[in-house]
Amino acid sequence: MIGAHALLRSLLANGVDTCFANPGTSEMHFVAALDGVPGMRAVLALFEGVATGAADGYARMAERPAATLLHLGPGLGNGLANLHNARRAGVGVVNVVGDHATTHAKYDAPLQSDIAAIAGAVSGWVRESTLTAEIGTDAAAAVAAARAGQVATLVLPADVSWNDGGEPAPAADPADAAPRAEPDAVREAAQALSSGEPCVLLVGGDATRAAGLAAADRIAAATGARVLTETFPTRLERGAGIAPVDRLGYVVDVAVQQLAGTRHLVLVGARSPVSFFAYPGKDSDLVPAGCRVHALVPKEGALTSGSATAALEELADLLAPGTAPRPAPAARPELPTGPLTVESAAAVVGALLPEGAVVVDESVTSGLGLPAVTAGAPRHDWLTLTGGSIGYGLPAATGAAVACPDRPVWCLQADGSAMYTISALWTQAREGLDVTTLVYHNSAYAILRMELLQTGAAAHLAGDGARARDLLDLGRPDLDFVALAAGMGVPGERVTTADGLAAALRRAAAEPGPHLIEAMVPPLVP
Amino acid sequence: MIGAHALLRSLLANGVDTCFANPGTSEMHFVAALDGVPGMRAVLALFEGVATGAADGYARMAERPAATLLHLGPGLGNGLANLHNARRAGVGVVNVVGDHATTHAKYDAPLQSDIAAIAGAVSGWVRESTLTAEIGTDAAAAVAAARAGQVATLVLPADVSWNDGGEPAPAADPADAAPRAEPDAVREAAQALSSGEPCVLLVGGDATRAAGLAAADRIAAATGARVLTETFPTRLERGAGIAPVDRLGYVVDVAVQQLAGTRHLVLVGARSPVSFFAYPGKDSDLVPAGCRVHALVPKEGALTSGSATAALEELADLLAPGTAPRPAPAARPELPTGPLTVESAAAVVGALLPEGAVVVDESVTSGLGLPAVTAGAPRHDWLTLTGGSIGYGLPAATGAAVACPDRPVWCLQADGSAMYTISALWTQAREGLDVTTLVYHNSAYAILRMELLQTGAAAHLAGDGARARDLLDLGRPDLDFVALAAGMGVPGERVTTADGLAAALRRAAAEPGPHLIEAMVPPLVP
Repeated sequence: MIGAHALLRSLLANGVDTCFANPGTSEMHFVAALDGVPGMRAVLALFEGVATGAADGYARMAERPAATLLHLGPGLGNGLANLHNARRAGVGVVNVVGDHATTHAKYDAPLQSDIAAIAGAVSGWVRESTLTAEIGTDAAAAVAAARAGQVATLVLPADVSWNDGGEPAPAADPADAAPRAEPDAVREAAQALSSGEPCVLLVGGDATRAAGLAAADRIAAATGARVLTETFPTRLERGAGIAPVDRLGYVVDVAVQQLAGTRHLVLVGARSPVSFFAYPGKDSDLVPAGCRVHALVPKEGALTSGSATAALEELADLLAPGTAPRPAPAARPELPTGPLTVESAAAVVGALLPEGAVVVDESVTSGLGLPAVTAGAPRHDWLTLTGGSIGYGLPAATGAAVACPDRPVWCLQADGSAMYTISALWTQAREGLDVTTLVYHNSAYAILRMELLQTGAAAHLAGDGARARDLLDLGRPDLDFVALAAGMGVPGERVTTADGLAAALRRAAAEPGPHLIEAMVPPLVP
Repeated sequence: MIGAHALLRSLLANGVDTCFANPGTSEMHFVAALDGVPGMRAVLALFEGVATGAADGYARMAERPAATLLHLGPGLGNGLANLHNARRAGVGVVNVVGDHATTHAKYDAPLQSDIAAIAGAVSGWVRESTLTAEIGTDAAAAVAAARAGQVATLVLPADVSWNDGGEPAPAADPADAAPRAEPDAVREAAQALSSGEPCVLLVGGDATRAAGLAAADRIAAATGARVLTETFPTRLERGAGIAPVDRLGYVVDVAVQQLAGTRHLVLVGARSPVSFFAYPGKDSDLVPAGCRVHALVPKEGALTSGSATAALEELADLLAPGTAPRPAPAARPELPTGPLTVESAAAVVGALLPEGAVVVDESVTSGLGLPAVTAGAPRHDWLTLTGGSIGYGLPAATGAAVACPDRPVWCLQADGSAMYTISALWTQAREGLDVTTLVYHNSAYAILRMELLQTGAAAHLAGDGARARDLLDLGRPDLDFVALAAGMGVPGERVTTADGLAAALRRAAAEPGPHLIEAMVPPLVP
């Protein structure tokens, strides 16, 4: 059996049956093996950042990793930004990166590069598979690492793939049960929460799903503590019937206000809060003066580990044995009419978000207002840009739709961010995925207009700052997302009113396959 | 003076006056400084691979480096593939990669990553600028490295940029004269070329331009040696009036045939030839058995170093003192009519290529036949995909057009490769660049269809190989490049005949600004 066959069989035996691929010459035996080894779904991407972002979105929803197939160092480089997001989200991915044949390496041919160095920057696990006989066990080890929430990168020289002698690895043993919180840490958290002093539970990891949020809410109900999630949770379950929760703000002043007066901050699958960027004259550390930080469960491990949820449940049983969680009531905003604005667009989303939707949120500044108006929508999942590297939305929505063919996927997408990985639309069309992409077209990097002020850089502008502002302006020429979508086989329409947006969302929902709606909204920061 | 101002002034003082930018929050003071420090042209890209590829194309034509402005590790990652190409081409680029403030690093905020590790994989020079007082000298050192043909990456923490105390660095001394070839190496090469045995001069680096090719041709005329260039020269000057030269083939069997019987291979700014990829049962080393390799000038240094050309001229004066070069005569194919094929499309290009054109060639399999029919076209430059990382054409054409506003730029672009960096079209529209993009639309990764056979992987297909071949097929759905171009403000048209292509090229030439022509061609490999 050639190495490529052993690799594919090992991935399948270990539960990886989807591969987001952008192959090249060094991957031809892997591609051919897709034919000879049934069971692996290969999804073609036209750019590697689509493949890696799709693997992230897939794993967040499928609760098991997908593979990617990438072409040498440059292919991995193209996938790096979305692997960064996966790493920061604790989402496992199995990257198979083709390399030159081991016999070819010494010639330093044009496409040769230091793949391990590039991989190391985003991977928790890196291995070069140098022996065909070991490719099976290497693949099983990569899947195990990915199941534990790591980006796992397997570098696969072409000859290791084409040589005979491959041995498929069997299904590995299931991972050990999630580690429990340390008894001392539980005791310390319980004391803090019982102290009567202002407490905040900051939850992340697996605890931003229904069970974890219910436990956190019981604690809050019994003790008066407040619950917040990390700013960008990996997968937030929310909507009617689920205990509601606010996210820690991205804007420093907002986060500072949310945490003001807190004397005890209990971290459950979350890291101690810091600002996303540094700003002159502002602290990066968001923990208020005089506040003690209690780490109940570290932010580590996979979305599925359950350890943060288990710790919250243990704590809830201690502190709130007779207390029930307070799920969000069903509530929808009225459908607005009139001009399209960030606010009215949000209300339309809140009014129409379907039951069981998967929302992929890369709306950036145009998404302000979405959390409030969707809090009582039917139960849904909300995936966010955990690592901050833009170009995540369209690919992640693609992967989520592959993972959940029976659920509607709504991709709420800023225009500037959309352009990094726009070819994800083509993969959506090719696979007939039920993704509705709502592009907020505001013709600007509006968040950078805000950051130009927040960082104090605006003070260094000369005159009207036109030359600097020009670099934050996407309106020269204006992008036409309906044309872009049409170029990739996705039907689209442009809307300029709230009514138009509602009608377009309904039309998209009534038809199978992907749709794009270009919503013309004024930028939040003019 | 804040650091960002000192950086910009130092870049300008050292001859870098163009910056291809995709900024983020950490780069806001650099962006603001563009306002306060006149003289730097900032060109916005919607994706970092466009910025880095444009910097490569710019430097190949301007003969001096441009800067890029990139946002942290993920932004650099997005730019990596085209930096790989620049590195392999010996083309200098000054990357300014914004980083978190030095005070922020310890918090490991979401966007933090190991920028130096990522940069190291593609850069000959990497430095983190940690002191505002030294940012000026750091910038000058980066420019010096880039002028020597290196990818130079300057990591710029936000606070180093915003703090006061920056000191602009003056213009650095001009680089030392290009090193001359060693006398022993010249003597050895002269002996080989005078031996009467079959000799090949393999030229690269700066020697693929008019002067180097003239000297190589004089040697060939006097000694009977043959001249070949590297497979993918950085900048090949060619056309009527310039000594013609063949390129070493990409396909192994072609290259083997070109070199068969050679007893002496003289390398001038070129590396000893190896195959691009390894293939089972084939040697990677393309030097024939019994052939001696003589390295006259190593492949190092910038496009502008002149050392390979100087060595060829020295050798020509020794071996061919009274011999004149044999420039290519002016010759054009007749304008074909009828269906569009790879052959007829090439003939149309040969018939119409304008005087002084800059051709950026990422035509891949659809470009077969172009060299022959353009050899007698008016004098032009031909830029190739030196590092093999696709997604190079559109960005490089963008940069070349910024460097050469008075020359027509023709981008001969395969469809699959175009999709990696398609947003370069938007930058072309924004800047009003005179780029004519000819997309060869064959709906396939045709080169991979060939490689599936070449690598022997096709032998492992089951049945008709449909599942594997599906991954090399771009026709489901079919891309519409005219719609994609329209979405980014570039006028386009689709052509299906040779006559139609000629008419479209003439229309594009008659109007200022960018144009896209989508030429429907059958794939070379069905």
